Amino acid sequence: MSLDPAIASRLKRNEAGLFSAVAQERSTGDVLMVAWMDDEALARTLDTRKGTYYSRSRQQYWVKGETSGHTQYVHEVRLDCDGDTVLLVVDQEGAACHTGTHTCFDSDVLLAAD
Amino acid sequence: MSLDPAIASRLKRNEAGLFSAVAQERSTGDVLMVAWMDDEALARTLDTRKGTYYSRSRQQYWVKGETSGHTQYVHEVRLDCDGDTVLLVVDQEGAACHTGTHTCFDSDVLLAAD
Repeated sequence: MSLDPAIASRLKRNEAGLFSAVAQERSTGDVLMVAWMDDEALARTLDTRKGTYYSRSRQQYWVKGETSGHTQYVHEVRLDCDGDTVLLVVDQEGAACHTGTHTCFDSDVLLAAD
Repeated sequence: MSLDPAIASRLKRNEAGLFSAVAQERSTGDVLMVAWMDDEALARTLDTRKGTYYSRSRQQYWVKGETSGHTQYVHEVRLDCDGDTVLLVVDQEGAACHTGTHTCFDSDVLLAAD
């Protein structure tokens, strides 16, 4: 699947051809997770409206929830001002984090809310 | 300024010693921007409660708002499950984006909200 060239031309990738993807839950505004994408993963996400990412460790694409059922229905996608991060606004099915927590930021507070 | 070794031991940095930092506005939940930090920038952020990042292009630390006045008062900081992204919940003074928009994601919609 090829990415719209007009979008591809606005992306700024790292040396591995990847850029960051932030997933935010539409209903709560919670920042759920941050993962990596390449052009193919973004093209699949835009086409299927299912959060699709690139796993550097497994060196393969993964559709969020394809094994866990914790799918992300992608409501909206935005690119940031310097083209190296996309923001997905999603409806998250179940837990977003592989540890089972709602978001990947639930467990480790470095500076508590004042 | 040195980072608490207990926190430093939980961080997973890239080859350049950096990790991602997502800034989210406390009052609106808007994802404002994504930038880079190293241990020093995180230590300063935790110590001063002012969003402090590392600029790869200028190869120097920058406190958000030190020239623009668009400072981030850091309300809370969380680390994600695999240690390579921190989430800052902030009170943002003025625009977060260097282009003048409220967030860095305001201007480029790749997939419109359905």
